[in-house]
Amino acid sequence: MIIKPLPISGYYENMPEEQIIEDRFKEIIKKNYSLSGFTPLDTPVVERVDCLTAKWADDNEIYGIYRLNGDESSEAKLWLRFDLTVPFARYVAQNEWTLSFPFKRQHIARVYRWERPQKGRYREFYQADVDIVWNWKLSLFADVEVLSTIYNSLLELDFGAFEINMNNKKFLSGFLISLEITDIAWTISVIDKKDKVRRDKFAIMLEEIWVNEEQKNSIINFINISSEKSSEELFEYFSSNTNELLQEGLEELKYVYNNLLALWVQPDYLVFNPTISRGLNYYTGTVYETFIKGAENMWSISSGGRYENLASNFTKNSFPGVGWSIGLSRVIAVLRELKKIEFISKTVTEVLVLNMGDSTLKNNLELVKNLRNSNINTEIYLDESKVQKQLKYAYNKWIRFVIIAGESEHETNMLQLKDIITEKQIEINKEDIIKEIISLKK
Amino acid sequence: MIIKPLPISGYYENMPEEQIIEDRFKEIIKKNYSLSGFTPLDTPVVERVDCLTAKWADDNEIYGIYRLNGDESSEAKLWLRFDLTVPFARYVAQNEWTLSFPFKRQHIARVYRWERPQKGRYREFYQADVDIVWNWKLSLFADVEVLSTIYNSLLELDFGAFEINMNNKKFLSGFLISLEITDIAWTISVIDKKDKVRRDKFAIMLEEIWVNEEQKNSIINFINISSEKSSEELFEYFSSNTNELLQEGLEELKYVYNNLLALWVQPDYLVFNPTISRGLNYYTGTVYETFIKGAENMWSISSGGRYENLASNFTKNSFPGVGWSIGLSRVIAVLRELKKIEFISKTVTEVLVLNMGDSTLKNNLELVKNLRNSNINTEIYLDESKVQKQLKYAYNKWIRFVIIAGESEHETNMLQLKDIITEKQIEINKEDIIKEIISLKK
Repeated sequence: MIIKPLPISGYYENMPEEQIIEDRFKEIIKKNYSLSGFTPLDTPVVERVDCLTAKWADDNEIYGIYRLNGDESSEAKLWLRFDLTVPFARYVAQNEWTLSFPFKRQHIARVYRWERPQKGRYREFYQADVDIVWNWKLSLFADVEVLSTIYNSLLELDFGAFEINMNNKKFLSGFLISLEITDIAWTISVIDKKDKVRRDKFAIMLEEIWVNEEQKNSIINFINISSEKSSEELFEYFSSNTNELLQEGLEELKYVYNNLLALWVQPDYLVFNPTISRGLNYYTGTVYETFIKGAENMWSISSGGRYENLASNFTKNSFPGVGWSIGLSRVIAVLRELKKIEFISKTVTEVLVLNMGDSTLKNNLELVKNLRNSNINTEIYLDESKVQKQLKYAYNKWIRFVIIAGESEHETNMLQLKDIITEKQIEINKEDIIKEIISLKK
Repeated sequence: MIIKPLPISGYYENMPEEQIIEDRFKEIIKKNYSLSGFTPLDTPVVERVDCLTAKWADDNEIYGIYRLNGDESSEAKLWLRFDLTVPFARYVAQNEWTLSFPFKRQHIARVYRWERPQKGRYREFYQADVDIVWNWKLSLFADVEVLSTIYNSLLELDFGAFEINMNNKKFLSGFLISLEITDIAWTISVIDKKDKVRRDKFAIMLEEIWVNEEQKNSIINFINISSEKSSEELFEYFSSNTNELLQEGLEELKYVYNNLLALWVQPDYLVFNPTISRGLNYYTGTVYETFIKGAENMWSISSGGRYENLASNFTKNSFPGVGWSIGLSRVIAVLRELKKIEFISKTVTEVLVLNMGDSTLKNNLELVKNLRNSNINTEIYLDESKVQKQLKYAYNKWIRFVIIAGESEHETNMLQLKDIITEKQIEINKEDIIKEIISLKK
């Protein structure tokens, strides 16, 4: 019986040309994370169910696993991770006496969430996380390190301008306290929705949480000012507020902002945005959201922040940290929507050596070997099909260079090198061909 | 409430120093697979349950997934892949009209099997697969390509000598037919167990499958000869056998063997072993098993073979192929058993710049930036702790180079560079420090 294979809802699957892009993105991110000294970890895709608490997520989003035909009563109940933060917190707590701190780790891997599938929202997707944790205390400078790492990674992905929005939970809470608002968390969660609803609807939402007329107007004014003034103007504007918590947050923001601009980040790429808050309640200091320019109304592609007590479910000891995530699958989804991404080559192969039959096979394999030894991805065609068919293979997959070397070419040591991008074909000495390909690649 | 985190039976989890080795192995394999033009794929970790049939595996080994608190009646039933071959067959069939053939792919990823955990046998482990498929026909040369790729990958892992054992299903079947044995598959499965049982037990097992005395002695003689004679002697020895299927298999073996020795493989690393068969019944031609020298009695670390009809569950069309897998987690497990692997550095960081306080922070960050721009993984210590504490951090994690640059060093442009392997500390001009580190690294 033949079973027609079907895609699985919410699980994306790349064609080779798409996989090449995703892998390139992954490698760039990994390289930048490593350059900044974040060492890789790779925890199991499953965690024990008892490590999951309401603090973390909506149970309805979680997948469990079971043995298809097994008796699982004696086995630990396991679930698929829905982020890389919970496994990291568990790992740090589990190994708190063997790890040396400060501990900087990266983790680029898939996570699983049951959600109604929609454009750019998947049930299986890649995240690329970095975190710094230290036992008991962590300098504010850690924010600078993490942020510059994320910035360098996104910049090298080379998709155009983006904007990192930064804020601080202390600043935002302090501001609301200075308005004498009592339910801070609830008010923050309403402010978080400001871009998702119309203006009049937003005012009604504020009224519904029992802020008075004056408080409501102050909040609306706060939101307007935040979008009108530059980062420097905002630092200045809020410097006269006398709330201590607000000032503590403001100092932290200025420290991170100034250190980043001094050395790492171009000014257009970083803004102080007093209204962002991030949904997750474990952040306690600076928080960040990142948008691709021209797609601010789409999803955030990268976000993070500082937390004081990530592992408190697992240990009595305190592990303050700064963590960030680049939504790798999401970045690609956004760029795809914006048509900013081109999928061209269907293989990693750079050079195809045509197969001209057994009489030249050994010579051509020698050539293949030398090309591979020079770090050039090389294939030889797998049989002696007609030259036209072999060339068509290179065009179909967009293999840039084709080497044609039959008996007469090997006799004279002059080989044919075809560049399928420029459509130029040159005759070249066997000794020079690798150098020539390397120089054309540049 | 604090939940003490516990390991999960059968799921291994690396410490940073172990992860560095696993990642290095993964990168070497990926690089070699790419050099040979195997383009990466990365299918979802789940497949539909209806894509699973008895042809593939024991249901008891399979994990399914479900929504923790959900109503899943409307959802597709999904299982975690137990190998990378079934997903590949499904992928090829699903995309048979858009892929261009021959299609060479690599896939390095985790697979899941419920098994009784024991040393080196995990429920979650990495495999690194390559396959070449072509619609309708595939030249024997494909075996040479796949095998040389695997050979190069294993060689570059640099763990010492290994031995690729090659055989051919046609040869083995032909030999048993020439003995007038009727139940070929059953006899092969008994021969497959020869190293797992004592000699006298093996003879009894042969008797139990109704081979007669003469056949039994021929098989035992066959096994003895196989281990006594060299590959060339065996080719010679069997050349007089008149069974056509045997001769077809023998010709295939000689073709692959000779082409590999001509260019790619050192003679000690490849042997014709007439008795290996591989358990999986979808192999139809050459089959391979690889052992680390000195650990032949432990597990095979890499195996593969040729199949005629991998995707027959999913399409009427025929996709002959050659596939191989390196058991990445297993290689590491074997090397660990053999104590051939050393876990030293606990971070990817190569250089630690000491943090000498705010007055030199900008200068030191400039240095960090230049080091990273030169592709050197660099950290600056996260606060102004005492120099001794910062140095201890470098020793703990085995960060090789430490740069010490306080105010006076920056004034004179002469920085301190400490190499914690040689224990040498030198004074060096700021301009030359990157060049010096690069040259010391070599």
